[in-house]
Amino acid sequence: MDKVNLAQKLSLFSDYYSPKIVGELNDSHVKLVKLKGEFVWHHHDVEDELFLVIKGTLRMKLFENGEEREVKVNEGEFIIIPHGVEHKPVADEEVHLMLLEPKGTLNTCNVKNERTVADLQAI
Amino acid sequence: MDKVNLAQKLSLFSDYYSPKIVGELNDSHVKLVKLKGEFVWHHHDVEDELFLVIKGTLRMKLFENGEEREVKVNEGEFIIIPHGVEHKPVADEEVHLMLLEPKGTLNTCNVKNERTVADLQAI
Repeated sequence: MDKVNLAQKLSLFSDYYSPKIVGELNDSHVKLVKLKGEFVWHHHDVEDELFLVIKGTLRMKLFENGEEREVKVNEGEFIIIPHGVEHKPVADEEVHLMLLEPKGTLNTCNVKNERTVADLQAI
Repeated sequence: MDKVNLAQKLSLFSDYYSPKIVGELNDSHVKLVKLKGEFVWHHHDVEDELFLVIKGTLRMKLFENGEEREVKVNEGEFIIIPHGVEHKPVADEEVHLMLLEPKGTLNTCNVKNERTVADLQAI
């Protein structure tokens, strides 16, 4: 059982919007991902997701009570997106995130497109 | 749905070995805790636990394959303790941690003593 160094793991890849598995516990995976640019609007039917910002500022767009809003999530902050909530991550500059979500969660979830990464790599 | 700033939440309490709930997702709680000194040896029968070090150095003592060893977990690093593994967190200086574990997990788990905190506060 070894520890995981976030910076070391983040140094192993440079592709965007392609989460890597760096840990598992209970029914969840811990993932690291780098973002740049806009993702797609999507939601997860049953899974809640945690986004912890390691570097940069994440602009999380989301719909709450029928209204679009945006939450700026900075380094050392996290946001939990409950299942069912439409959201779209936006990264004006490069953003590094630690994600926590149930095993098997697809990154684009209810939307399958060129951004969908079905077979995640463990690093 | 709001973001959580780890430093801000950590500024709200100063007691040791008393985890506070700062988020929930799926069947898990996200907690923050400050440690100083030694905890007790214990294990969790069914829950895996994640310890992410926000500040300081955690010395995680554990038994693996019948042998005691220690993993030094520094800032920006995490360790996952699988269920069943005997472990004892030690903090020579103050350590701040983010924990992730299933709802209802007792901090001392199989051991109930003066360190047990059964009703966790949400902050």
